[in-house]
Amino acid sequence: MFGIDVLSLLLLLIAAVTSDVTDNELDDSCDLSSDLLTEIESYGPTVETIINSVLNGKFKGGTYNELADFVDKFGARLSGTQNLEDSIDYMLALMNEYDLENVHGEDVEVPHWLRGIEVGEMVEPRTAEIEVLALGSSVGTPQEGIEAEVLVVRSFDELDEANFSAAASGKIVVYNYEFVSYGVSVAYRSQGARRAARYGAVAALVKSVAPFSMYTTHTGQQAYEDNTTQIPALAITAEDAAMFQRYQDRGEKIVVKLNVTTQILPDETSRNSIAEIVGSEQPEKIVLVSGHLDSWDVGVGAMDDGGGAFISWYALAVLKSLGLRPKRTLRAVLWTAEEPGLVGAYAYNTTHYDELDNHTFVMESDEGTFTPQGLIYTAGTRGGCILAEIMKLLTAINATQAVYSSGGVGSDISIWTNVIPGGSLLNANERYFWFHHSEADTMDVLNPDDLDKSTALWASVAYIIADLSEEFPRDFNRTTADLTKSELMKKVMESVAANKIKLL
Amino acid sequence: MFGIDVLSLLLLLIAAVTSDVTDNELDDSCDLSSDLLTEIESYGPTVETIINSVLNGKFKGGTYNELADFVDKFGARLSGTQNLEDSIDYMLALMNEYDLENVHGEDVEVPHWLRGIEVGEMVEPRTAEIEVLALGSSVGTPQEGIEAEVLVVRSFDELDEANFSAAASGKIVVYNYEFVSYGVSVAYRSQGARRAARYGAVAALVKSVAPFSMYTTHTGQQAYEDNTTQIPALAITAEDAAMFQRYQDRGEKIVVKLNVTTQILPDETSRNSIAEIVGSEQPEKIVLVSGHLDSWDVGVGAMDDGGGAFISWYALAVLKSLGLRPKRTLRAVLWTAEEPGLVGAYAYNTTHYDELDNHTFVMESDEGTFTPQGLIYTAGTRGGCILAEIMKLLTAINATQAVYSSGGVGSDISIWTNVIPGGSLLNANERYFWFHHSEADTMDVLNPDDLDKSTALWASVAYIIADLSEEFPRDFNRTTADLTKSELMKKVMESVAANKIKLL
Repeated sequence: MFGIDVLSLLLLLIAAVTSDVTDNELDDSCDLSSDLLTEIESYGPTVETIINSVLNGKFKGGTYNELADFVDKFGARLSGTQNLEDSIDYMLALMNEYDLENVHGEDVEVPHWLRGIEVGEMVEPRTAEIEVLALGSSVGTPQEGIEAEVLVVRSFDELDEANFSAAASGKIVVYNYEFVSYGVSVAYRSQGARRAARYGAVAALVKSVAPFSMYTTHTGQQAYEDNTTQIPALAITAEDAAMFQRYQDRGEKIVVKLNVTTQILPDETSRNSIAEIVGSEQPEKIVLVSGHLDSWDVGVGAMDDGGGAFISWYALAVLKSLGLRPKRTLRAVLWTAEEPGLVGAYAYNTTHYDELDNHTFVMESDEGTFTPQGLIYTAGTRGGCILAEIMKLLTAINATQAVYSSGGVGSDISIWTNVIPGGSLLNANERYFWFHHSEADTMDVLNPDDLDKSTALWASVAYIIADLSEEFPRDFNRTTADLTKSELMKKVMESVAANKIKLL
Repeated sequence: MFGIDVLSLLLLLIAAVTSDVTDNELDDSCDLSSDLLTEIESYGPTVETIINSVLNGKFKGGTYNELADFVDKFGARLSGTQNLEDSIDYMLALMNEYDLENVHGEDVEVPHWLRGIEVGEMVEPRTAEIEVLALGSSVGTPQEGIEAEVLVVRSFDELDEANFSAAASGKIVVYNYEFVSYGVSVAYRSQGARRAARYGAVAALVKSVAPFSMYTTHTGQQAYEDNTTQIPALAITAEDAAMFQRYQDRGEKIVVKLNVTTQILPDETSRNSIAEIVGSEQPEKIVLVSGHLDSWDVGVGAMDDGGGAFISWYALAVLKSLGLRPKRTLRAVLWTAEEPGLVGAYAYNTTHYDELDNHTFVMESDEGTFTPQGLIYTAGTRGGCILAEIMKLLTAINATQAVYSSGGVGSDISIWTNVIPGGSLLNANERYFWFHHSEADTMDVLNPDDLDKSTALWASVAYIIADLSEEFPRDFNRTTADLTKSELMKKVMESVAANKIKLL
């Protein structure tokens, strides 16, 4: 999952454009017609067939096994690397093997940042190795390294206090913030280096963004700003951040030496991987299911986002094999280069811009494929009512929740989910950020049963929305009656486009 | 905490010597005299004073702060290193500063094994770094490294099957056992290398002994055997062990390259650190409270066993400051070189052999200082009844349990706890082995409140046992009536001595 503040910024921009839109509150009493209710209910046997085939039939364990094969074959899949491209070739071949339709890659220019040597050493008050992990897009140190005194701050506010900001010049700034939530605390990762650099700091060591640590470092994208010196931006463990704080609180001088090499290479051409089941009646209408194929270079990206990518294409594989072709087209997209900033999604936005109005519903799973609980969605009241009815069909796997999100859903698809209804997998992902962007993101985080259930849910929801006689309602309960949907979307896309240059 | 199979062996030996001893089952109806009950109850105000001073008074947070100062100053404290000796000097000075009595070090010859470079790389079926962590006493690889095919086994039984054992020659054996419990599964760490070497393996990679992993390696002692080639014994993560298993199950060839340097240097002289509050009436009688000061060289040994060592000496510091001098002597021992095999405890056994009959009760905390729940003990029925009464006084900190252990308690003190009654800290240590012997053993595992409560419990229990008018009963409900206690102990000690040579 992507997660730099760019995403927040994006959501704010979208919110600004649609600022007179009222919040959606799903009424207790939905007034769907009895015909529609009957129609949704009529998908019960189909859902049962899907669940049975995935949980007990020929697809049992299939998602996990395919993902394990994939992850064991390629390991991590960093944007810009040949390994990512090889893994995309493999996926295109695999989706063809499973008889999916219109399987193809769509070119995307992606950044190519590479990690190198990373050595952190505390020199004072005692000698010890300090685990450091460069953040995405970080520069390295000069060849001779950086040896400097450490200044610890507990927050940006503290850094901005006169006594701290005056002391920051020439120092290595350590961010020992209190973890609140990923969404809130990720700002230290994304902005830490540039904000320290404003005061003349020579490097930033950012406590890893996670609620739990076993001396674990977590990488992730960070961003510099114009007119501020680019200084190394490195993650450290929560344990070392706390230790530095204790030293400083005791008045002890801390000196750290850093030797870090990174490389920013020319952009490379990567691909979004696409496969479809073409709709039988309205092939131009699209229900999109997705996850991203790229990962960070630590761990193997089994959770982030191997699980999400694999339940997406595998859901189509199951439906195809069961002969379930809906009225509208089902399109699986395995995004490339999500991690450096939704790069694949922006490219899709450009390539498929004229087709966006035909996107009925967009789905992405990028917050874990732990035990599924239902769907977290963004849609209007009527859409929410329809989803609530659909989710009732998932009783057999105890994943019947339909939870409204006011802030959009997904990572790549968040570009669109305030104008196109969308959903993400609601799952028991309390430990997601324990493993996220770290060496601990491996197959051991996942299990076959959860992936089976996630695939079954994903296939069922996508199929029903794509097959319903009624087009999924785009109504977001908005008071922007003077804006057509296309005009609204155009405004959002302009904001996105204007912002994009800064993102990457 | 120590934990190689030597400990199990030791307990088996002790069990063998005392094989006709019946298991202790604490009767519901203890028949302690009303005088004794009244006497124990009379310690209520003293316990209250101790608890108040530690939880709310001048000692509040003291254990944590002293431990943080210590750990931040010295980091890890490996047997044989100058750093361990410096930390011992510091502790002797600190215990003097806190006005403890007879503060001194007692010489112990300890092993000096050193970790060096550790590089693991998978060459086939794909290229990837494999985290490896040498186990204590492991040899390194030849200078040019070892590159060999991998054979994965799920158990010793599987290794001993003809098709596996025949295939092991020239291979790197990976142990991908199912973790059952530390006590059971640690055999793979301690014996894995030698058992693989019997079949001609060139190295052993042992899944880290832990119930949870975030791509975490855990070290710990292992032991070679005579007449078998000494091969490198390295811990790997649970994640990599599972990955190797998947490759093998698919029939894929796995090749790993290892470059590891370790050094076995001449033994060094270390010290057990001792401090006392000399008894007012029976100074020759001793209640011993202890933890070990040495640690492994990964992490900083804050949990294993900084916490245990610090609640022990700090309990005496609290009592001394409160003017609480019991009838018998309270002796704090900070063991040295527990990790390579209870080396400090064996030395104490030799040095204090003639004094052992005067050891009234022995205590050690080496299984965590998380939220304390009470005492886990080994004693006879009457002893158990007395402890149950004492623990009732700890209601204020909700740590009133007195739990009988049939298998001895503690690590160092386990040498004696089947002949001398003893107790260990019962605490909410469910996650102890998550952090154990890994980089994750830091101050972040601990918190000031839990340490305060642990110190208060430790001080209260030790003080009451040392001050009771009745000598704590040595009766283990044994039917070995024909053996005097001294004879019984002598037998145990002979077994220990005979076994010791093999241990170290």
